[in-house]
Amino acid sequence: MTQGKVLIAQGGGPTAVINQSLVGAVTTARDYPEIDAVYGAFHGVQGIVNEDFIDLGGEAAENLELIAATPCSALGSTRDKPDVKYCQEIFKVLRAHGIGTFFYIGGNDSSDTLRILADEAANAEYALNCVHIPKTIDNDLTVNDHTPGYPSAAKFVAGAFAGVNLDNRALPGVYVGVVMGRHAGFLTAASALARKYDDDGPHLIYLPERDFSIDAFLGDVKAAWEKFGRCVIAVSEGIHDDTGEPIITRLSKDVEKDAHGNVQLSGTGALGDLLTAAIRDNTDIKRVRGDTFGYLQRSFMGCVSDVDQREAREAGERAAGFAHDGGNGGGDGSVTLHRTGDGEDYGAEFKLSPLQDVAGKTKVMADEFIAKDAPDVTEAFVDYLKPLLGSGMPEAHRLEAERVGKILNK
Amino acid sequence: MTQGKVLIAQGGGPTAVINQSLVGAVTTARDYPEIDAVYGAFHGVQGIVNEDFIDLGGEAAENLELIAATPCSALGSTRDKPDVKYCQEIFKVLRAHGIGTFFYIGGNDSSDTLRILADEAANAEYALNCVHIPKTIDNDLTVNDHTPGYPSAAKFVAGAFAGVNLDNRALPGVYVGVVMGRHAGFLTAASALARKYDDDGPHLIYLPERDFSIDAFLGDVKAAWEKFGRCVIAVSEGIHDDTGEPIITRLSKDVEKDAHGNVQLSGTGALGDLLTAAIRDNTDIKRVRGDTFGYLQRSFMGCVSDVDQREAREAGERAAGFAHDGGNGGGDGSVTLHRTGDGEDYGAEFKLSPLQDVAGKTKVMADEFIAKDAPDVTEAFVDYLKPLLGSGMPEAHRLEAERVGKILNK
Repeated sequence: MTQGKVLIAQGGGPTAVINQSLVGAVTTARDYPEIDAVYGAFHGVQGIVNEDFIDLGGEAAENLELIAATPCSALGSTRDKPDVKYCQEIFKVLRAHGIGTFFYIGGNDSSDTLRILADEAANAEYALNCVHIPKTIDNDLTVNDHTPGYPSAAKFVAGAFAGVNLDNRALPGVYVGVVMGRHAGFLTAASALARKYDDDGPHLIYLPERDFSIDAFLGDVKAAWEKFGRCVIAVSEGIHDDTGEPIITRLSKDVEKDAHGNVQLSGTGALGDLLTAAIRDNTDIKRVRGDTFGYLQRSFMGCVSDVDQREAREAGERAAGFAHDGGNGGGDGSVTLHRTGDGEDYGAEFKLSPLQDVAGKTKVMADEFIAKDAPDVTEAFVDYLKPLLGSGMPEAHRLEAERVGKILNK
Repeated sequence: MTQGKVLIAQGGGPTAVINQSLVGAVTTARDYPEIDAVYGAFHGVQGIVNEDFIDLGGEAAENLELIAATPCSALGSTRDKPDVKYCQEIFKVLRAHGIGTFFYIGGNDSSDTLRILADEAANAEYALNCVHIPKTIDNDLTVNDHTPGYPSAAKFVAGAFAGVNLDNRALPGVYVGVVMGRHAGFLTAASALARKYDDDGPHLIYLPERDFSIDAFLGDVKAAWEKFGRCVIAVSEGIHDDTGEPIITRLSKDVEKDAHGNVQLSGTGALGDLLTAAIRDNTDIKRVRGDTFGYLQRSFMGCVSDVDQREAREAGERAAGFAHDGGNGGGDGSVTLHRTGDGEDYGAEFKLSPLQDVAGKTKVMADEFIAKDAPDVTEAFVDYLKPLLGSGMPEAHRLEAERVGKILNK
């Protein structure tokens, strides 16, 4: 049973529905009479160390509903990835404020922080429930069928490629769209959901799960150009050659690295420009354009999956429930999402899995989702993603009337 | 009165509502009993020269409604800008097919094509009605209060910056968003509609109507960073220095030019990367990101202004009406949109203006829309744009509860 105070924080990159999970956990937790207070920490673990707390027990229910529908972490986020020493600082603050339960909404780094923190509390024989609430647009958490935040980002990417395909059909050329995803290609793969007609793009989809070769790429583009008279390409920002070197580093001399030692892939148009330049330099195709979808994928106001909203909300609610029913110290874990039915019968349920099953691990696309003989995804992937996009996916239509016979140039 | 056959085509860059105008003109025109047929030409003037026509009289009404709601030219488009010789080829085909009225949906280049064509027809004493139906996301057509296509693109840009502002607030840093618009800053200016709270971004807005200086830019960024601890910047792709040289050419050695001799600005992330590099090199700000919104601005599936949809539809309907009621040869002109009321009383009406008043001319933002003392727009601009975005603009909300007192570090 939950006791003392509850603390909640958000970590890592924002998603369109991350506040649904926040509000789900807050509204559920503050209804348990044995809970003293529900605090929120600003900017994740950083806000804990700085004791930068808000008393969410006093937040009006109506405003919480408006917050739930607002994209991007309402509490702010952080890229800090605490080591043991940092976790000891966190623990000191949790203890001082009498926090009995800590919910951290985040990806695999956030769950790893909770894992270290839970160990720290156990060592100190302090009763602390550490519950991880999953979110990531990358969809790369293990155990989970998929992750809250991914379906809305996938809907954005599918809508973007559906529009770009129409644009490219109106003004034929080659179009390269660069999509987020360092190791996992799920978000890039979502571009396949843009297709409706046989000749719709994306015609080529490059995932980080497969080695990328510029030569093979150019061959694919030429073949698609000959077949369709145009070509729409979806590329993951994380594509790399067969030595594992990111394709982007071939261009950029001054590559930025983050605190985890990772090369900066987002927030730059370099990869798209490299690929369009390669096409221009090696083919006679004149109209070659590239876009990097960037931060809009995870934060655009006005593109959200209603299935994702409901699931993110439930993930937060169930986290509070698991913490409450799991008993002090015994309730550590990661809330995980499991599919209970496919297609029309799509459904999902939540479980509490051991933190170490999710913490610091990365899931990539299964082989069954990746086409064997072409840079593409499989029907199995389309079937996997389709129900997650929810209602209201816009659909393209084409003119169907008869052609008129030529008079001058029969 | 319209006689013979009607031909309709679409030119230039696609918009989210360009097919509303197509369907408005087709459904209105084919209801006039004296019209023999309504043809559509594929890929604008290119399709006319190639006699690549579809018989839109046979298109099912239900499918036309679905087409109307589909973004990007259903008939395809072209970047061809016909000279007199090209127009003579067009005229030959129009004559052979007995075309009495030609509707061309497009921007200022398309209206210029019509102007040349109308002259050609007059010289040959051939009764041809040439009616221009306005569209452009750039909003740069003269005479018009605004142009169909702009409100939906503006809604996308406002929604993008509203999301990016939340993202930037969650993970503070500097963010540069590059927006389409070579000479006119209307679309970049739309980013201002993303703001709700006093400290919301974009904090800086750079328009092509004003000279751009890297030094002044860096000063602005540093000042905003000090004031807000973060900074969101909207930049037009068309910014140039005081000699008129585009800022993008300072970076790119291998600049592509189009048939009009214009430097390629879209479909590359170069400008965003140049600006973020300048900030990184000249400040101690660590987290600097840039996105180029690219083609999503004009073609994204699922972001459209309902006001824009209605107006684009009416522009097409009125074009057919003007052609019908204006009399043969006397009905040449450009359909223009005029505001009849502001704010809550917003409304618009359509007139038929002389082709030469619109053809080949470019409107830029009025001085009253551009702030004098900061890189920003004025309240007058916000009032101008707000009613055009229509219903359903998503709104951000913030937590309002009390802060918790510190225990350890009072």
